[in-house]
Amino acid sequence: MKIISINAGSSSLKFQLFNMDNEEVIVSGLFERIGIDNSQYTLKYNGEKITEEIDLPDHTTAVNILLDKLISLNIINSLDEIDGVGHRVVQGGDKYDKSVIITEEVINDIENLKELAPLHNPAGLLGIRAFKEALPNVKQVAVFDTAFHQTMPRESYLYPVPYAWYRDYKVRKYGFHGTSHRFIVEQVKKITGKDNLKIISCHIGSGASIAAVDSGKCIDTTMGFTPLAGIMMGTRSGDIDPSIIPYIMEKEGKNASEVIDDLNKKSGLIGLSEVSSDYRDIQKGMSEGNDSCILANDKMIKTIVGYIANYYVLLKGADVITFTAGLAENSVALRATIIEKLACLGIKIDSEANDCNGEIRKISADDSSTLVYVIPTNEELMIARDTLNLV
Amino acid sequence: MKIISINAGSSSLKFQLFNMDNEEVIVSGLFERIGIDNSQYTLKYNGEKITEEIDLPDHTTAVNILLDKLISLNIINSLDEIDGVGHRVVQGGDKYDKSVIITEEVINDIENLKELAPLHNPAGLLGIRAFKEALPNVKQVAVFDTAFHQTMPRESYLYPVPYAWYRDYKVRKYGFHGTSHRFIVEQVKKITGKDNLKIISCHIGSGASIAAVDSGKCIDTTMGFTPLAGIMMGTRSGDIDPSIIPYIMEKEGKNASEVIDDLNKKSGLIGLSEVSSDYRDIQKGMSEGNDSCILANDKMIKTIVGYIANYYVLLKGADVITFTAGLAENSVALRATIIEKLACLGIKIDSEANDCNGEIRKISADDSSTLVYVIPTNEELMIARDTLNLV
Repeated sequence: MKIISINAGSSSLKFQLFNMDNEEVIVSGLFERIGIDNSQYTLKYNGEKITEEIDLPDHTTAVNILLDKLISLNIINSLDEIDGVGHRVVQGGDKYDKSVIITEEVINDIENLKELAPLHNPAGLLGIRAFKEALPNVKQVAVFDTAFHQTMPRESYLYPVPYAWYRDYKVRKYGFHGTSHRFIVEQVKKITGKDNLKIISCHIGSGASIAAVDSGKCIDTTMGFTPLAGIMMGTRSGDIDPSIIPYIMEKEGKNASEVIDDLNKKSGLIGLSEVSSDYRDIQKGMSEGNDSCILANDKMIKTIVGYIANYYVLLKGADVITFTAGLAENSVALRATIIEKLACLGIKIDSEANDCNGEIRKISADDSSTLVYVIPTNEELMIARDTLNLV
Repeated sequence: MKIISINAGSSSLKFQLFNMDNEEVIVSGLFERIGIDNSQYTLKYNGEKITEEIDLPDHTTAVNILLDKLISLNIINSLDEIDGVGHRVVQGGDKYDKSVIITEEVINDIENLKELAPLHNPAGLLGIRAFKEALPNVKQVAVFDTAFHQTMPRESYLYPVPYAWYRDYKVRKYGFHGTSHRFIVEQVKKITGKDNLKIISCHIGSGASIAAVDSGKCIDTTMGFTPLAGIMMGTRSGDIDPSIIPYIMEKEGKNASEVIDDLNKKSGLIGLSEVSSDYRDIQKGMSEGNDSCILANDKMIKTIVGYIANYYVLLKGADVITFTAGLAENSVALRATIIEKLACLGIKIDSEANDCNGEIRKISADDSSTLVYVIPTNEELMIARDTLNLV
């Protein structure tokens, strides 16, 4: 069985073709600058990387080129070998609590939910429509970033704002990165053989969120109505006093959306450090004694540790803490600092075990009260698995 | 020594006259609807309550009537008996880390800081100016709500937003209720005989905040740039995803300040319950099975427990948790529910001891990992003490 996993952006299309018999990636790649000048694609296949500049007026063209390449490079013999296409969809609202086969109704729902995800849902639809046109007989599946969080109890997902904002305008916490958190929870089950654990799942990439999971069910998460909320990220502020918005609007003569844009794109690590949104640059700065980088790192760690503590108590103690995604998979020091700050909960690091990058590894000491793991995430594989299950 | 403690609002003036030899209140009272129709004053003296409707065109008139009454009721024989007047000032910015004698410079600073506290600082100045006019030879003291929090480290007080917002516009966490938190910390010192404790001070009234205090120094607090942030309150939301603001602006055709106004006045308990901002009404609703009241209570407790957990870890374990102000001093059930949710930290309630209202009481069980106290707050006395120390 072969499944394509798709993550479409407004001007990009990322894909992986999986052989689901062994869950291996046959070929992966990226179409960039779709609808813009200098568009190109990159394929990774058989240890080789192919890059070609090519005109990509729209997503349908990109998909057709992709399918042509799969044939011309003898990656597959016929398009009939593709058993399903899974698409990442950011916002599934409160209707979708799991992945579904894409029907006209699902497409309409994704379209209607664009108000809650104005950048992401229309991009997801571009990918879905392009594949529907190119492979009309292949089943397609929508995998929602929000679905995993639909098990949250109401005191987690409702904001303490006028209730009519929820009733009339669907203002609530949706949570994101759900596909990653779900993948991690499945990995923990595989590693431990248990499915009734209390897990604090830390997805810390340039976007970052933490989920509290009890027996496989999400009970709270840090991202909210949008992916802006929660812990500090590469360019996003996470939680701040909302009163800052009208104050900055007046000071800088901006409208509210422009200030929210600053909170999404000019805040977090880049905002505080004034150096970079890339954690590797922050680490470099810290090693050179750059005080702003030290501050940015301290602040990010403070917000992460604060939510781990919050969720530890919410779960009435945690069995497992997991670290995944770019920063958490690859920064030994970041993990070490976070875990050291959890010492009063009896959580202890095994520094030797922690000296690793991007592999599954238990990094807690044997006498730690809580198991701590590094587990690389794989949202593409999770999308492919859901697709396989449904087609 | 006699000291007057003043809390001036834009149309009100609350006062208490203390005999500082025994810290007893000689007389207390309230002038209401200053500058509006139907203005009146109320005095409490010698177990009696005197109310009189009287024309109060401005704060100076109120102060003059107050001083006249002190003489005519033989509460004092001469105005010379008043040794000092202490004023509550909400916002002291990052300049004032303690109470100070009021000079022209201080008045100018309070005036200039009104941008950060547009409702409160001008009101405080009305009280200060009225007393300067009426008692030009008596020393006056400014006691700032923000001062206690000035010891926070930068990773607590800086937001992960563009650093220029701090540099150019003073956007940072100031924290409020500082006079109350400081009073509680002094009380803990008196009760335990120790000044090196790690304390989580929960001030939960209709406005509410929590402070993490290490050896007498505040290291973090839940309120922020304004008193809107942090835990859910009677009418205030506390922390929410800032992206909600432009979304509601568009949905309801409001400007940003109007939405912030909704977050300050129509959120919290009243927002979620749609019943009342008064916790007694919420409790009544809960006892009658009102689901919205149960939801509002669950949410408020969740936000309080979340920050206690956060600060427990920030402090590397807490020695003492204190409950003060209206809701926390008077709701046995609120305290019990919060403490039960902290069981995984080894914190245990003594239910019998907890069955009390508004008195100093240890309510943790003898085998609790952390001491828990109810301690009534007294900001007016704290203002009077600071004033005595400075005059």
